[in-house]
Amino acid sequence: MSRPIDFYFDFASPYGFIASTAIDEIATRAKRNIVWRPFLLGAVFQKFKQSPLEHPAKREYVNNRDALRSGRLKGLAMKTPQNWPEHSIPPSRIFYWIDQQDPEAAAGYAKAAYKTCWLEGKSTANAELATDVATSLGFDRDQVSAAIQDQAIKDRLVAENNAALDRGVFGSPFIFVDDEPFWGSDRLDQVAIWLERGPF
Amino acid sequence: MSRPIDFYFDFASPYGFIASTAIDEIATRAKRNIVWRPFLLGAVFQKFKQSPLEHPAKREYVNNRDALRSGRLKGLAMKTPQNWPEHSIPPSRIFYWIDQQDPEAAAGYAKAAYKTCWLEGKSTANAELATDVATSLGFDRDQVSAAIQDQAIKDRLVAENNAALDRGVFGSPFIFVDDEPFWGSDRLDQVAIWLERGPF
Repeated sequence: MSRPIDFYFDFASPYGFIASTAIDEIATRAKRNIVWRPFLLGAVFQKFKQSPLEHPAKREYVNNRDALRSGRLKGLAMKTPQNWPEHSIPPSRIFYWIDQQDPEAAAGYAKAAYKTCWLEGKSTANAELATDVATSLGFDRDQVSAAIQDQAIKDRLVAENNAALDRGVFGSPFIFVDDEPFWGSDRLDQVAIWLERGPF
Repeated sequence: MSRPIDFYFDFASPYGFIASTAIDEIATRAKRNIVWRPFLLGAVFQKFKQSPLEHPAKREYVNNRDALRSGRLKGLAMKTPQNWPEHSIPPSRIFYWIDQQDPEAAAGYAKAAYKTCWLEGKSTANAELATDVATSLGFDRDQVSAAIQDQAIKDRLVAENNAALDRGVFGSPFIFVDDEPFWGSDRLDQVAIWLERGPF
């Protein structure tokens, strides 16, 4: 089997959400697995000492126009959570806690957490809401709450952030197909073509 | 007739070039005119005290991967000019000098200057090369050279930059259809849908 597709995303990223609703079908068609890799965009912005969303015009455009409009075109009635954008620490840690038991279940958690955030407009930066998503999938509330504070899980997320940075990830979503990088949900069409025809 | 499409672009922007090769057809199909509006992304970055291309990973991605790859997919064999990115002052001033005589000829100049920059890899940040493009279209070399240093033309470009900033332009290309903003050559598909079906 060919190498899996690496799918990097931040739970606070509306474009990551849009990609999360489409990437399964693209991978299945190409007979590839997906490695889901949440990371914190905040760590990227900190490293580069810049945050694109500090541009008021860009933030206004992304938040009030482009993301929701792009979603509508794909039939997704997206809602921006209050206080957006916030750091996505709770869902990212819960993801990696599930991932060390069962990567497929972790991907299921990612998709459910994304829907809670972007279709219901409830920010999973809130630890309780991020935990609710896990319990709705059958995980034990006390175990999930403990995982969020578990040092090994904290370290895992830091390690994943560093690995993403080392690999050149600077935005969300960020996708690698056989080491070829693609940034943005609007590059999924190129990902699909690359998988179908090979390099172009 | 409906309002024209406002097309903002920086001559140093590879995505602006890609858009410049496709926007005529989209506008014609929708029976709209286009107002071509070169501006300097540097002025935007200065205002926001940030430049996205200062991220080494992002610059590497845009320059060595995404822009050229996106071009190839559209049949454009793009070459990144040496010393890219540079300020696009000469072609922008020449554009506005032609524009005050004949907006359609100015659009023709923009398309020709873009091709010189992105298909031949010759940066029109070089005043002589930017002038060559104009003379190849029949303009007088001495008049063009004088225009680049003309205070009224300098002021016009500054005024256009300020107007673009006031309107919320923060990247290139940036397109308005009836005041709806679209950023990026990868939003041309949404521009076409918006023009065909109306707001979504």
